[in-house]
Amino acid sequence: MKPDLNIATLRSRYLAGEIHPRDVMRDIVSLIGDDPHHVWIYRLPLEEIEKYVSALLDKNPLELPLYGIPFAIKDNIDLAGAPTTAGCPEYAYHPQHHATVVRELINAGAIPIGKTNLDQFATGLNGTRSPYGACRNAFDPEYISGGSSSGSAVAVALGYASFSLGTDTAGSGRVPAAFNNLVGVKPTRGWLSTRGVVPACRSLDCVSIFALNTADAATVLSVATALDELDAYSRQALTHGLDFGRTATFRFGVPREDQLQFFGNQDAAELFRKSCAALEAIGGQKVEINFLPFLKAARLLYEGPWVAERYAAIREIFDAHSDAINPVVREIIAGAKKFSATDTFEGMYKLEALRGEAALVWGKIDCLVTPTAGTIYRIAEMEADPIKLNANLGYYTNFMNLLDCAAVAVPAGFQQDGLPFGITLAAPAHQDVPLLHLAARFCNDDLADVQVPEAQGGRVRVAVCGAHLAGLPLNHQLTSRGAHLVARTHSSPDYKFYALPGGPPYRPGMVRVAQGGSAIEMEVWEMAAREFGSFVAGIPAPLGIGTLTLADGSSVLGFVCEQYAVQDAEDISRFGGWRAYLKQKA
Amino acid sequence: MKPDLNIATLRSRYLAGEIHPRDVMRDIVSLIGDDPHHVWIYRLPLEEIEKYVSALLDKNPLELPLYGIPFAIKDNIDLAGAPTTAGCPEYAYHPQHHATVVRELINAGAIPIGKTNLDQFATGLNGTRSPYGACRNAFDPEYISGGSSSGSAVAVALGYASFSLGTDTAGSGRVPAAFNNLVGVKPTRGWLSTRGVVPACRSLDCVSIFALNTADAATVLSVATALDELDAYSRQALTHGLDFGRTATFRFGVPREDQLQFFGNQDAAELFRKSCAALEAIGGQKVEINFLPFLKAARLLYEGPWVAERYAAIREIFDAHSDAINPVVREIIAGAKKFSATDTFEGMYKLEALRGEAALVWGKIDCLVTPTAGTIYRIAEMEADPIKLNANLGYYTNFMNLLDCAAVAVPAGFQQDGLPFGITLAAPAHQDVPLLHLAARFCNDDLADVQVPEAQGGRVRVAVCGAHLAGLPLNHQLTSRGAHLVARTHSSPDYKFYALPGGPPYRPGMVRVAQGGSAIEMEVWEMAAREFGSFVAGIPAPLGIGTLTLADGSSVLGFVCEQYAVQDAEDISRFGGWRAYLKQKA
Repeated sequence: MKPDLNIATLRSRYLAGEIHPRDVMRDIVSLIGDDPHHVWIYRLPLEEIEKYVSALLDKNPLELPLYGIPFAIKDNIDLAGAPTTAGCPEYAYHPQHHATVVRELINAGAIPIGKTNLDQFATGLNGTRSPYGACRNAFDPEYISGGSSSGSAVAVALGYASFSLGTDTAGSGRVPAAFNNLVGVKPTRGWLSTRGVVPACRSLDCVSIFALNTADAATVLSVATALDELDAYSRQALTHGLDFGRTATFRFGVPREDQLQFFGNQDAAELFRKSCAALEAIGGQKVEINFLPFLKAARLLYEGPWVAERYAAIREIFDAHSDAINPVVREIIAGAKKFSATDTFEGMYKLEALRGEAALVWGKIDCLVTPTAGTIYRIAEMEADPIKLNANLGYYTNFMNLLDCAAVAVPAGFQQDGLPFGITLAAPAHQDVPLLHLAARFCNDDLADVQVPEAQGGRVRVAVCGAHLAGLPLNHQLTSRGAHLVARTHSSPDYKFYALPGGPPYRPGMVRVAQGGSAIEMEVWEMAAREFGSFVAGIPAPLGIGTLTLADGSSVLGFVCEQYAVQDAEDISRFGGWRAYLKQKA
Repeated sequence: MKPDLNIATLRSRYLAGEIHPRDVMRDIVSLIGDDPHHVWIYRLPLEEIEKYVSALLDKNPLELPLYGIPFAIKDNIDLAGAPTTAGCPEYAYHPQHHATVVRELINAGAIPIGKTNLDQFATGLNGTRSPYGACRNAFDPEYISGGSSSGSAVAVALGYASFSLGTDTAGSGRVPAAFNNLVGVKPTRGWLSTRGVVPACRSLDCVSIFALNTADAATVLSVATALDELDAYSRQALTHGLDFGRTATFRFGVPREDQLQFFGNQDAAELFRKSCAALEAIGGQKVEINFLPFLKAARLLYEGPWVAERYAAIREIFDAHSDAINPVVREIIAGAKKFSATDTFEGMYKLEALRGEAALVWGKIDCLVTPTAGTIYRIAEMEADPIKLNANLGYYTNFMNLLDCAAVAVPAGFQQDGLPFGITLAAPAHQDVPLLHLAARFCNDDLADVQVPEAQGGRVRVAVCGAHLAGLPLNHQLTSRGAHLVARTHSSPDYKFYALPGGPPYRPGMVRVAQGGSAIEMEVWEMAAREFGSFVAGIPAPLGIGTLTLADGSSVLGFVCEQYAVQDAEDISRFGGWRAYLKQKA
């Protein structure tokens, strides 16, 4: 029977002493059996797994967020003691060290089960391009698993691991998530180190995470995210700020009707419509966008010079033993040779122009929502038309790393034939945590107890009550920072409101009082956290930014006034707001 | 006689009605005479200049920051009505529109005088590679002017223009500034639009500014900086925040002694030592750094695949009429053909690794200070050994755009032979305005009345008095944002200091009072403005960020406490600070 391996359940049973990691691992090994789905390239023998279990015995489970949690590793990511093949036995090497990301997970208590099957050299989105056998879908073995992180997804779906590591350059961490009913996190490029990972396109590669739910994904992401000074593409995660939150509204972009592609799959089209309705039901505002810049960028990935990165990664074996390469993969990578340095820069100019066009779209939405893949195919269909059908699978995924986005793929229901469908939430780099929170809301998961990377996201809300209100003289200090109005409301009835001396610009001051307060008209604006610091820095005495209480009892950052400055100021609380006061004065 | 064309002087004389733009232009045209220095490729006839003058007549000079200010334009930047040659007559075309940056300047009242000589296709740092004649140094015509923006620098140095536009990919906006005793601003890549500019390396090119002093440079920079949605490489200037300021201390990095290169020029070495001493005298702390990552990046520019961008920019004429190209330029650009797409990506991997190494250096310093060029050559010397001596000129400049830096070149004295010497201040992208302020302090210029792009720089100071003090429980909220301690001091004696209820962490609150206040121990920390917003967002009620007065009477952002919360709190003002209170309590 498939065990319940979700991290929270397993952890609480460990902490309660109900089970022992050794027993969990033994059950998994027995469940895997003879691996009919072609999930594994290398399975750790029980005695190897036992070494990892033993290493935990003198540790305090409370201090290890992944204590005793089994995980699977795509076989293009190094695990010391196991070969790395990247799906090509002739390429295999024996790494001396764990990949940085594997090391972080093991240090947090996670236990590796084995190395998983993949489209060779992570080139493919379908899971059939492997000499270890086409990986089979967890829900119907006649169907593709998706790829290239095929085995990693199916391992989690079949209960062989609580989570797994994939990689994602073109969609390899998302398509298999959709096809196996999993959460797939493609983090911001550089958050997870790629040291010890066989490159596909080194300038674009991400390590990705498959998990059973968004809470597990967030837990693993928070452990795996680490700046690696020895990885040139590692980037500091910019996570400071606030977050979508439970009640926040958000604008989600969806491709125009004529730019949606389901390749004839009516079930998928219907499931996508239902997903959009569900997002609206939890506070989302749907915005139709022009998807063309994204589609054009997607096309550059395989039709442009970036394929030369794939050749750069494996040039030795490619030049010396090209017969060792899967014929479809070989055909794709051979395309590298036709591109010159000049072509490369010209491709980058095109991409840069598309980034600019995409930026205009991002200005109108908080996140992008698409199907993860428009349809799914049988293994036999894929093998009959391997390049065109694979391209169809990447319609919604190929652009993501070229345009420097973060993405979370989530399950979104089942087709009538029982195969899963999924959608992807995406946003510009470093919005991983807000995306995870939104994904959790969509999935009705609870992230409240999950440790996510610091302070959760990149946006801040600030309540204004005076010259910063819409249309008033200092409002440009908000709009020039890209802020948008999210609510017109009032404070709780706990404030006195004063007209401060000086000006123009004329300004009021709010002071919280224990009794005799009034409710004051306010607007709540939202901006990127990185812009907020300079906004605060420009506020003159006696004003500052503190915490205000709104009419609904919630707290929000907002303008406060130091008490000393209102001694001789006029109390204008009776007007209930700055606009009413100005009107009376005019 | 050479007129005084500095912008402030000219502007005050215009506003006082002492002179008229028409007369200034006529004097300039007459001063240029037969152009013995080979400054110009195209001079506007007086009747053309008159059209620009006439367009100003019904305008209010007060509203035009560059009203009647003459400027010169490097001949790889479009001016409608004049040919653009890029230093190659066979390449010439007649643009229908001004380059974006030229349009911004003319709209602000500036008057174009002509198009200036350059190293052909902006390929060179010396000024001799032009069929229009080697441009001659303004201080000694036997010497090189520096390049590639040769004519633009000499035009300003000889009093033909108040300022000029150059371009700067490898150092073309800085080397000629040093050799002609000018300020040369190489802004952050993307601040100034490159639409309407003939590319050299399109992914790296900047439009640059030559001016007589830092105040003029700042004025022109503020007019010329504009986001251009039609230029894919245009970037929003991130200028919000505070600034070095007059009294701020700063850490400046200088290459290790064995990494300094003066190519035998003892005068230059001595002038550089004096410049460092002068920086120390105005509050700078000198830090010896490892310059190797910068030198390695510099070498990539000409020895790596980026030369293919130069070919991409002119491939048509290069393939069809290579005899039209200067032989030295042709030899350099022909190098493009040997690089493949794979080589290009491998070059980028190297660069990315060097960026990581440079980031470690930037973490230790606020700016980098180097000679702008280690030495200068005679025109005859340069022509005898054109590639090697040119490479010497780029020793301190070639890396700057590859590593995404902003730089300001400033005059730094004269050699015994009367030729000028200069130094360059550099910092990571978007630090242009802090650099200009520092340059002004070094040059003893006054920027107080100059409008510089919004809010002046990227750093914020915040005064802390409680759990954020060094070594206390919340100090990590500062250090994790890269903040560093800049001062240990006290507040002015205007505050009451309270121990707030709750905790841990235990926290105090400062409340300003009209009388009976005390001076409280404080620390001032500094961090990037983009990090400050999330810091503020994490502060719980009743605390907030407002403005505090320090013991020396200056104002600084810092922690304030709302009055309502201290009604029942213990007044601990008598301890004079949080540390003393904790000690007593322990």
